[in-house]
Parts: sequence; structure tokens; C-alpha cells
Amino acid sequence: MRGDRVSLAKAITLIESNHPTDRQEAEDLINSLLNHTGNSIRIGISGVPGVGKSTFIEQLGKTMIDSGKKIAVLAVDPTSPSSSGSILADKTRMPILSSSSQAYIRPSPAGRTLGGVTNTTRESILVCEAAEFDVIIVETVGVGQSETAVKSMTDCFLLLTMAGGGDELQGIKRGIMEMADMIIINKADGDNIKPSQLASRMYKNVLHLTPKDPSEWPTTVKTCSSLNGDGITDVWKSINRFHEIARENGRFYKNRQSQKLQWLEDSLEQTLIDLVRQSKSTKAMFNEMEDLVISNTVTPSSTVRRFLSKVEINLLPGTNK
Amino acid sequence: MRGDRVSLAKAITLIESNHPTDRQEAEDLINSLLNHTGNSIRIGISGVPGVGKSTFIEQLGKTMIDSGKKIAVLAVDPTSPSSSGSILADKTRMPILSSSSQAYIRPSPAGRTLGGVTNTTRESILVCEAAEFDVIIVETVGVGQSETAVKSMTDCFLLLTMAGGGDELQGIKRGIMEMADMIIINKADGDNIKPSQLASRMYKNVLHLTPKDPSEWPTTVKTCSSLNGDGITDVWKSINRFHEIARENGRFYKNRQSQKLQWLEDSLEQTLIDLVRQSKSTKAMFNEMEDLVISNTVTPSSTVRRFLSKVEINLLPGTNK
Repeated sequence: MRGDRVSLAKAITLIESNHPTDRQEAEDLINSLLNHTGNSIRIGISGVPGVGKSTFIEQLGKTMIDSGKKIAVLAVDPTSPSSSGSILADKTRMPILSSSSQAYIRPSPAGRTLGGVTNTTRESILVCEAAEFDVIIVETVGVGQSETAVKSMTDCFLLLTMAGGGDELQGIKRGIMEMADMIIINKADGDNIKPSQLASRMYKNVLHLTPKDPSEWPTTVKTCSSLNGDGITDVWKSINRFHEIARENGRFYKNRQSQKLQWLEDSLEQTLIDLVRQSKSTKAMFNEMEDLVISNTVTPSSTVRRFLSKVEINLLPGTNK
Repeated sequence: MRGDRVSLAKAITLIESNHPTDRQEAEDLINSLLNHTGNSIRIGISGVPGVGKSTFIEQLGKTMIDSGKKIAVLAVDPTSPSSSGSILADKTRMPILSSSSQAYIRPSPAGRTLGGVTNTTRESILVCEAAEFDVIIVETVGVGQSETAVKSMTDCFLLLTMAGGGDELQGIKRGIMEMADMIIINKADGDNIKPSQLASRMYKNVLHLTPKDPSEWPTTVKTCSSLNGDGITDVWKSINRFHEIARENGRFYKNRQSQKLQWLEDSLEQTLIDLVRQSKSTKAMFNEMEDLVISNTVTPSSTVRRFLSKVEINLLPGTNK
């Protein structure tokens, strides 16, 4: 809470640890800090590989620091489950922020499922807030479910894109577009300015066709260049405006409340899955099913349905192993 | 089984249905076909957006058809959960295959979780095999967990990539590379031939540093052009060689067996999660936890741990509701 970066790093390492005693310690730590959390703007940033997330965060981060903010960059990236950690929020990709005393960059923890990363990141956000960071950026590489995770833990969700990504690129964004508070068309520089403006118009048209509830923030479309900095200040202004309005009309607090309940639900589900996996009755049942599947007369799905159609799950107070 | 495409399409629509009676019917259908399944080569293809998956599948598919094969293309794509279906395996993206009597293309089902798509696709593979397709291509857009899903249901996993995709692109592939049986560097044409050859050498070096078990197929690196067809025949030859060796040394059958058990495990887990969600005891517990979380004195994760540390899960024969 005095802003000591070594302590902060240690706290997050504790949060990322899989060891049971570390887990208890981490939870005690976070619970003791809860009164000092919640005071940042939490920004989610997503985009497909090659869209320029790192340089965009560099530029946006610099602008934020120039306006007097302390920023933390965290990553949600379950894409490298087996190997040596994540490439997202890698310090070498953000040289300016890495060397700034006003910024803290933390790569995604390695060897985790999406659920695991999500939980760890939610806790890390709280710790960074207690360390008095004003803005928390949560970065994810997008295609798929990690965007939903990032959206579920941030106040404002930015979808980074670029002009001319081809049909497939466009298509993928359709599902995600509905989630975005802002669509940022990056790389709007040089020969790419015109195509970027065209893309901007296209997005606006699409958004116009699927209007949001009037009480909600209308998805904003912006162009910018992370190369020369054009439009970055405008993005930052737009984030502040979003934040201001959301606080005024109470959506900010409502959103955070429902995110907390979402976290509870996710956590409950994950823990119950683990309990089910470890349960003796599950193991016994699995062995019986295995024999049936190997005989190749019934599909695995069908086998499970046959066995479980008459089963009920009960949570019983057990022995505290 | 007489190769009627309308029946095949109807069967897959039945498989994709969420309606309980349809589910029962779908399972009965597949179980009745099981004796006629298993005779195809199942090929997984993955790559980030923009790498040219559709044109590659067009070219490879054409080569397969020319060598007398019937091919089906299925997609695993959980990226558009809310909207109008998937863009993967879209027929308009593969005009040659779409108009061929020897090919069948089926887009990914809409509005499904990864688990749901995975299950549906596993069943669709079986139905396509019963309809006497010789090659089943399962396509997924890669970044993340969908590759693991596709790997878990195919015999041979191809990772499609291209030269000069930037640091981030390279990084993401690191985690996935270990899964690949073949790494295919696409777009090796024109000015891009040299960079593609360099990339090929780089991949080979990296693979050399992390050798596989000698009993396993060594990950093969190939360059090709989906634009002019260069190298495509070579890829097809390599797939056949892979298949031949895997059948000879028995790895093919071992892999399919363990995939079947994986399917069982996934299915069991998914069904148990649903049961847990619907359980009355879970709901009652959730309400109690909610109050604690809203008071903001304990994090959601911590709340769950406190409540569940003394709980055991029991599968009890219930009433068949």
C-alpha cells in the first residue's frame, strides 16, 4: 500500500501459487486489503494477433501517465498451457512502460486454464488497486472465450482491430462486437488512413443496425495510430467520458456488483468440478462406463447419459481432509 | 449410408439440436451406426485468422478428391456464442469443395460452448464416416483451447502458419507447436518464398531443440502455396505416410482408444457440472454465499473455499425427473 513494487510482485506471485498454504495466505492478504480496493478504472483490451495490442497499450499507457495516472497492465492468456509462460504483457514488448516508475506490467501466469487465469487476475486487480494504481489494463489475445473473461472483470471493454483484416477477421469480431464499449481501429496511418476510415464507417453502420438499449453506453468507434500517436488522446478522453457517465447513472456500481456475483458463481462452479473429479463415487462410476465405451456399442456421450439419467448430486458435510 | 447428402445433413442437424427428444433420437441413430464408423483419416487443421485456412483446405481437398477420396469438412468454432453462427467452414469460402459431389462442408453449430461444439463434432465425425467419407477435416481457428479440442478428436493435427507473422504470432504458436504432427507454412509464393524457407528452417531448429520420443512421429515442417498449389501434393503425401506408419506401429489405434476415453471423461464432467448447477443444495448454498460477498469483507473465491472446505460430493440414485 506504500507503493513498493517488490511487495506487489511478491503478493501476485503468492496469488499465482498453487500451493494450499500459499492459497490460504493469499486469500487472507486480499481480504485484509479489500477496504482499499475498487478505486481504479478497469479497462479490458482485446484483439487478434498482429493488430498491435502492445504498441497501443504503450501509447495509451504513456498518455495516461502524462495525465498523472499510475497504471498496471495484467494479462489473461491461457494459450500456452504447457510451456514457459505467456507472451502477453511481456515487458520487452512495452519498453516505455517497463522503464516507467508509474507503470507496472505483469505477464499472464503460465500453465493455467482459463478459469485459473481468470481467478488469479481478478485477485491481482484488487492487489494493484490497494497499491494505488489508478488504471488497471487487462489485456487478452482475442479469439474466443478469453474476451468474455476479461469483460467480466473490467469496467470498460476495448476491442482493438484494424482495416482490411479479411473476411475471417471481420467475421470473428461479429460475436465479440456486441461486448465492446469501444471499437478502436488501430494502424490508421500512412496509406492505411483511408481504409481505416472506411472500416470505421462500416462498423458504425453495423452497430447502427443492432442498437443497444438507450440507457446503455453506445459502442463508440475510433481510429488511431499507435505508430505516430494519432487519436490516442481521443481514446483516453473517451474512456474518461465513459467512466464519468457510468458513475453518474450508477451503471458503474451495478456492473461491479454483478461482476462480483459472477466471480462467486465461477468460483463455486470450479470448486464443485474439482470436488466432483475427486469424488470416490465418480471414480467408481467412471470405471464401469469405461468398459461399456471400449466395447464400442455405445458412444461415450450416450453412456454418460444412461448412467446419470437417474442420479442426483448432493452436497454433504464431509470430513475436512 | 447410401451417401444421401440430405439425410446426412438432417442427421447432423439432429445431433446439434438441444431438444431432449432429439438428443435421445440422435444417440440412438449414432449408436446404430457405430459398426460402420472409424474408417476415415481424421485430420485437424488450425491456424490464426488470416493465415489462409479456407484456401488451404480448398487446395488440399481438391488434391484428395483427385486421388479418389470423399472428404467432409467440419468446424469447431465457439467464437460466436451469441450471434448467427460460425464463419468457419462457411461454404462461400470454399467454392470448389462446395460444388463438388465428393465433398461435404458443415459450418460450426452456433450458440455453443467449446464443450458443446466438441461433443457435437465428435458425433458428426462418426455420422460422416458412416456416410463413407474417407477423409474428415476438422477445422478450427486457433488461438487457445479449441486446438486442444480438435487434437483430441483427430488422428493427425496440422498447424497452419505463415512467414513473418510478427513476434506475437510466433509466441502463440510455441504452446501449440508441441501438439502438431505437421507445421505447414502457407503463402510460400512470390516474394514470400525466401521468408517462408527461413521460417521453415527456424521451426525445424526449434523442433530440434525439443525432440519428441523416438517412438513418436517427428513433427514435420512443410512450406506450400494455397494460391498456386505448390507443395500441396507433398502435404497430402506426408499425411498418407503419417497414417501408414501410425497404423503399422499401432499408434493409430492406441490414439483413437484414448480419445474415446477422453470423450467419456469430458462428457461425464460436463453432465456432472449440469447436475451440480441444477442441484437444490447448490442453490441454497449459493444464496448464503451471495450475502457474504455483497458485504465486501471476503472475496468470492475465499467465500467459496470457506463454504466448501468441509463438503463432499455424493452421487445418489435420484428420481428420474
